[in-house]
Amino acid sequence: MGRMAARPENAHQAQLLRLLRDEGPRSRAELGDAVSLSRSKVAVDLDRLLELGLIENAGLAASRGGRRSSLVQVASDLRFVSVDIGATSVDVALTNGVLDVLAHISEPLAVRRGPHVVLERALDLVGKLRAGDAKVEVHGAGVGVPGPVSFSDGVPVAPPIMPGWDRFPVREMLSQALGCPVLVDNDVNIMALGEQHAGVARQADDFLFVKIGTGIGAGIVVGGEVYRGVDGSAGDIGHISVDESGPQCACGNTGCLEAYFGGAALARDATARTGESDLLAERLAEAGELTALDVGAAAAAGDPVAIGMIRDGGQRVGRVLAGLVSFFNPGLVVIGGGVAGLGHMLLAEIRSVVYRRSLPLATGNLPIVLSELGGQAGVIGAARLISDHVFSER
Amino acid sequence: MGRMAARPENAHQAQLLRLLRDEGPRSRAELGDAVSLSRSKVAVDLDRLLELGLIENAGLAASRGGRRSSLVQVASDLRFVSVDIGATSVDVALTNGVLDVLAHISEPLAVRRGPHVVLERALDLVGKLRAGDAKVEVHGAGVGVPGPVSFSDGVPVAPPIMPGWDRFPVREMLSQALGCPVLVDNDVNIMALGEQHAGVARQADDFLFVKIGTGIGAGIVVGGEVYRGVDGSAGDIGHISVDESGPQCACGNTGCLEAYFGGAALARDATARTGESDLLAERLAEAGELTALDVGAAAAAGDPVAIGMIRDGGQRVGRVLAGLVSFFNPGLVVIGGGVAGLGHMLLAEIRSVVYRRSLPLATGNLPIVLSELGGQAGVIGAARLISDHVFSER
Repeated sequence: MGRMAARPENAHQAQLLRLLRDEGPRSRAELGDAVSLSRSKVAVDLDRLLELGLIENAGLAASRGGRRSSLVQVASDLRFVSVDIGATSVDVALTNGVLDVLAHISEPLAVRRGPHVVLERALDLVGKLRAGDAKVEVHGAGVGVPGPVSFSDGVPVAPPIMPGWDRFPVREMLSQALGCPVLVDNDVNIMALGEQHAGVARQADDFLFVKIGTGIGAGIVVGGEVYRGVDGSAGDIGHISVDESGPQCACGNTGCLEAYFGGAALARDATARTGESDLLAERLAEAGELTALDVGAAAAAGDPVAIGMIRDGGQRVGRVLAGLVSFFNPGLVVIGGGVAGLGHMLLAEIRSVVYRRSLPLATGNLPIVLSELGGQAGVIGAARLISDHVFSER
Repeated sequence: MGRMAARPENAHQAQLLRLLRDEGPRSRAELGDAVSLSRSKVAVDLDRLLELGLIENAGLAASRGGRRSSLVQVASDLRFVSVDIGATSVDVALTNGVLDVLAHISEPLAVRRGPHVVLERALDLVGKLRAGDAKVEVHGAGVGVPGPVSFSDGVPVAPPIMPGWDRFPVREMLSQALGCPVLVDNDVNIMALGEQHAGVARQADDFLFVKIGTGIGAGIVVGGEVYRGVDGSAGDIGHISVDESGPQCACGNTGCLEAYFGGAALARDATARTGESDLLAERLAEAGELTALDVGAAAAAGDPVAIGMIRDGGQRVGRVLAGLVSFFNPGLVVIGGGVAGLGHMLLAEIRSVVYRRSLPLATGNLPIVLSELGGQAGVIGAARLISDHVFSER
């Protein structure tokens, strides 16, 4: 792949590119208005972006009476790669320059198998996706991992569920293999970015994305930007205590939110309670193991044990979120991740606790909603992360 | 007072003024280096600031071999007014343009007496402070109030302990009375700004200021700026639940942090437990009532009841803060406010819980310290708030 792909050369070119990414094809006149630059200055920057191959002409605008003006758009052969590494799966996607997902592969893969196995498999999958699309140039890759990340270094830092990954040079390895700029972030942060780019949080500047999957975490967006904290661990809410006298957690403390809820805890509790539920017992006999999805299915079928588990879990998540809503006063809370597939029953419990327990001023106008993007939030967000970087002044 | 005082006319002038405010007298050459502008452009902007009366010449720099260069500084007759309204007191101060407190009056006054009584008394006190200083011009006033504020409107919004203040036009009334720009913010936010300007948080970009006074609240600073949330209620942590089966709180919920700790709860509990403590009983007999300070004094004298109360309170504050530290991953936590006068015993409890209960990555390098500014944090922060506004592009 050799040389790095072109990037904008100044702040105005970068701004024009991001505008075309987010708003679609625009005329030169519209672009001039949007960036408050003279038409002649916009023309110089657009000509340079055309020369760099970052944008292309896109025909004529619909007539508004006078001369029809010509449109430009992000170059159609521009590509971004997304790699969303979860606790038990890896998702890889290829997007175009406006972050439409062109192809997406998801397969089971345990992150605990270590960085060499996981990243090599991810690169194989990228190769597969690019096989039908070989002429185009990859302009960058965004990567999410299920643990804290030092964003400036592009390495995981002391990630509890990722043995062997501590300080592994993820960004460097992938950047060399792919021949393009790479950024690495926590998986919940990229899901938040995905919802902001293409999902329910499009108009939100200050919001929380709460992932309830194998683990539980939050992505925090402040003023339109992901807030990562001083060590990259902001949003790590799975180990907030909900009851000091509660069960032992893998982290060493007791009564953490994750020790009660999240995919692993739900599967464990469902297995332990098959004696009380014929439905769960049948599913265990059929599949050999129970997951959070089985609990969801049993609850949907009216099983009282499963319904009770989801209600209890929703209450505990709600209590933690109530405190965070009082603290952070967000404009929106988005619930996503695998366990969020439990859907509206879980959402109803969370809502009822948050609306009852947070400061009235902070909840008076606070939507709490399910993710719209589901399994695509991560890959869209990873593409958004790297495109913000690539579509910026060098 | 008539016409409004002068303000900088462009972004460079504003930047130069803030630099002189924060760094003290500087030569023209040093200023040019700091703002990355040519000497001739800096000279034009400095000349204009001199004409506007916002800066003044300050003699010659110490010789460094060649020609001694002349220094400029913020005009010495420039003044800011600070008004820090607490639950039971009002503080008023006058600062110069580099935010040194020139005069400061603090007097007891219950905020529940309503906006007319409190703001008129505050204006009287401002008049007193200005009496010896009549020739100088007030360039702006910063105001803190003990409740949520709509920052853009300059009005308190549904403040629980401020009857009669809901949507009262505080900014407008004071701006008309003082003839200068006014900004109104939550009292904890201005204390956070004070610590950032002149206290222990000078080098911190992302930190929490936790006030434990009559109420309990947090000021959140993100990227060097106060984060207020979408409704201005961010940081309202006094009503986070620490125990659902706990005592009834004034807010209607049960087991809120403030129902256990904070000045009012401590005074109530100390009064209820005088039967167990001779020291507290004596103090009650002497003074007719007990306050948080009596608990602190009894603890310092070794009284086991008082020590137990502070330890319990510190544990509960620590549990809430542990969750917020996991969520927010700040670089620093500053503890201030009246009850923080309980000092190192309280701090030790809070530290021990936070360090034990938060994610190790988030606490590995997290100082938790007492406020250095004490009773001056609010007035310095209020001056900082308004000076950031006045020293900005109009």
